Amino acid sequence: MADSYTYDLVCIGSGPAGQRAAVQAAKLGKKVAVVEERQSVGGCCVHTGTIPSKTFRQAALSFVGLQPSSGHHPVKHPTSEALLSRVDDVVRRESDVVANQLWRNDVDVLGGRGEFVDPHTIAIAHGEGTRTVTAENILVSVGTRPAGPPGVTLDQDVIITSRGVLKMKKLPKTLVVVGGGVIGIEYASMFGALGVRVTLIDRRERPLEFLDREIVDELIHQMRENNVAFLFGEAVESLSISESDGPKGCVVLESGKQLVADMVLYAIGRQGATDTLNLEAAGLDADKRGRMSVDDCYRTSVPHIFAAGDAIGFPSLAATSAEQGRLAALHAFGRPAKPMPDHFPIGIYSIPELSMVGMPEHELTAQKIPYVSGLARYREIARGQILGDNTGLYKMLFHREDRRLLGVHAIGTGATEIIHIGQAVLALGGGLDYFVEAVFNYPTLAECLKVAALDAHNKLAASRV
Amino acid sequence: MADSYTYDLVCIGSGPAGQRAAVQAAKLGKKVAVVEERQSVGGCCVHTGTIPSKTFRQAALSFVGLQPSSGHHPVKHPTSEALLSRVDDVVRRESDVVANQLWRNDVDVLGGRGEFVDPHTIAIAHGEGTRTVTAENILVSVGTRPAGPPGVTLDQDVIITSRGVLKMKKLPKTLVVVGGGVIGIEYASMFGALGVRVTLIDRRERPLEFLDREIVDELIHQMRENNVAFLFGEAVESLSISESDGPKGCVVLESGKQLVADMVLYAIGRQGATDTLNLEAAGLDADKRGRMSVDDCYRTSVPHIFAAGDAIGFPSLAATSAEQGRLAALHAFGRPAKPMPDHFPIGIYSIPELSMVGMPEHELTAQKIPYVSGLARYREIARGQILGDNTGLYKMLFHREDRRLLGVHAIGTGATEIIHIGQAVLALGGGLDYFVEAVFNYPTLAECLKVAALDAHNKLAASRV
Repeated sequence: MADSYTYDLVCIGSGPAGQRAAVQAAKLGKKVAVVEERQSVGGCCVHTGTIPSKTFRQAALSFVGLQPSSGHHPVKHPTSEALLSRVDDVVRRESDVVANQLWRNDVDVLGGRGEFVDPHTIAIAHGEGTRTVTAENILVSVGTRPAGPPGVTLDQDVIITSRGVLKMKKLPKTLVVVGGGVIGIEYASMFGALGVRVTLIDRRERPLEFLDREIVDELIHQMRENNVAFLFGEAVESLSISESDGPKGCVVLESGKQLVADMVLYAIGRQGATDTLNLEAAGLDADKRGRMSVDDCYRTSVPHIFAAGDAIGFPSLAATSAEQGRLAALHAFGRPAKPMPDHFPIGIYSIPELSMVGMPEHELTAQKIPYVSGLARYREIARGQILGDNTGLYKMLFHREDRRLLGVHAIGTGATEIIHIGQAVLALGGGLDYFVEAVFNYPTLAECLKVAALDAHNKLAASRV
Repeated sequence: MADSYTYDLVCIGSGPAGQRAAVQAAKLGKKVAVVEERQSVGGCCVHTGTIPSKTFRQAALSFVGLQPSSGHHPVKHPTSEALLSRVDDVVRRESDVVANQLWRNDVDVLGGRGEFVDPHTIAIAHGEGTRTVTAENILVSVGTRPAGPPGVTLDQDVIITSRGVLKMKKLPKTLVVVGGGVIGIEYASMFGALGVRVTLIDRRERPLEFLDREIVDELIHQMRENNVAFLFGEAVESLSISESDGPKGCVVLESGKQLVADMVLYAIGRQGATDTLNLEAAGLDADKRGRMSVDDCYRTSVPHIFAAGDAIGFPSLAATSAEQGRLAALHAFGRPAKPMPDHFPIGIYSIPELSMVGMPEHELTAQKIPYVSGLARYREIARGQILGDNTGLYKMLFHREDRRLLGVHAIGTGATEIIHIGQAVLALGGGLDYFVEAVFNYPTLAECLKVAALDAHNKLAASRV
């Protein structure tokens, strides 16, 4: 360590990227701190994002039963207290897990809001004052925050962002969701499954464009059967609160349509939380959405300053952010680091859940890669029958000539778990024959992979006659 | 096809082995029939074994909620009607799936009980009489049937075998299970989870000896917390029904202990259902448990007669039986067939479920293979917290020198699904570094594999200092 610095590495933000970077650097024997403005560590992931929304989802699923798309709606609508009761517990425990891991690795946690004084110096403002630390290397891992609708004051009960869901006093009967990104889709599907009449508005003609279209079509179909209506190609002209008939949210669209609902969830335009960092003092800047640019090593234009996690944009998943943080720490200290694996999975925790690994069909077509697809549905396999679960659709894509696996796209209970089988086969260079010959536990949902592979196998055989 | 035979292949029994062999042969263009004495196809797997017991298990789990080991017991005990109501439906649908698959592949289904007349001739007795068919190749895929306790008449309500569970009129308050094999363990855990006080008796000192001992210890621990008591190293001296206080089952052990319970489930000594086949006419025989011997190609001592599935013994799983059937059909017609994969998974559908792939720890020790183990528990990972699920324990075994994966042993919700990730890595030659570097969806139960691998990684690093 260069003696002139307080720390070898300071991470600003203790979400998945900052936390993992800190632990990795500590394991290399470095002196490390994380700066965290919240009372406790974990970032949006633990406090307002992933963990609370997945806990909420689990509560919703257990109210709805195990058959999300079978038309089996809950007789009673659960209270918001019942839905949110476990959130605080799980958040506290997960934050404790992170705190404990940092403590075990001798990482200092510096409470307060950090900002750059110069490229190696960070001032940390907390209740009583400001302290200053210096660092040889710095990681910006501040994440994002939801942007409120422009020109509208958020109202804790009627017009909210995703953070407001966790504080809602009453389950609405009607909900408008503005924005069909991951957060909008996840919450729309959860509220729909709970029997809330939901309308989702998005400016684009399709949501979740990075996913396979057939799987997204299936999601839209299943969400429609679960009380969600979609208005695509529509943009919001104005948002307001009407008090005439109890407080309601009024949404006027550019097309002239008007919607009134008990609650409006504004879920577009998350902003990188970089605006309070005084980036200029470090010689850095961010784009208009607060996001920072990095190279393949997660290095900014200032060589000893790195950025990782949601603050650098897509894919903005907890798992990928953590890996970015780990890699950034290795690069900071000149340690060998393989690039980010190509084959990381993407998981969307809608009801039902989606997951993918590898390339979607439209990308293979664009790249002119010859492929064959195989499909399987939960209703065709024994485990699906036993669970009474018709939600599942799996699509596997194999190279038409060398039969290697190119992508797996799945929707249905357990898809975010089962996708890892495809991921391993992709990463280790397996293909169609692996799935045709492998023995799967019976009865499991994972058998869908074998059934889909057999479908592709039969198509290939038929096209050779 | 040799014109002198009615069929190229006749499979006696339409369970997983017979069905898959028939479909494979049909896909090779062969003329095929299956002989089935039941009214409908599917064998024990569909009618009395796998499918009904897993449907029963699902009903039990949905009564108990998603937290099998959290001490959250159902307030009301469900009725047997409620538990069994879906069984008939699922059995019928799965049998239809099998029938449909046979039909699509032009496989004849010959109803009646088959027996050998000579090595190429089978007489099929049905209601009205007997028909005779000849076959160039024959597969014996008759499965097993439960053996009743010697010297005791089964009573449909008090002393039953696994078949009787599916007809029980009332959920017992107390149950004795005789036999700690897969069936005994599965049902004991299900009844225990339903709040029934269960005593399981086994002659051996440990059950499920083919599994990793630490995982079995965990299962025993969790079953004990769910109303199951174990009596190991104990054998039954006598079984009888007492009418003094309503009909009860009385079990006297060789050690002199006496047990009285509402129901006794006798779950040892399944017999190969080969006794009615007139094997001698084909020049074959079976051992005293009715099991047949085969070579690596599933060929008996008579070269054109094959046997597969439960009738040949371990592992007696639906998935392995199906693959044996497929391979037998390929061998029968001289087609290339790889041997049975080394890395087939084993799944035990107890509550919580178990699964393994590769070698258990005691086997590595016996073979003097140097290994390092890594452990992870559901309570350490976010998904476990969200589910409120403490049931999970994962153990991964890696070669100490070349770091390849040697085995994965898992207990907990979803273990039978998640094990397939380990299976793919095993089969494709991956190891510790795959898991350390792979990005897993967050939050998932599958992350346990990464956490366990990191544990092994840290142990290896520590032992190198």
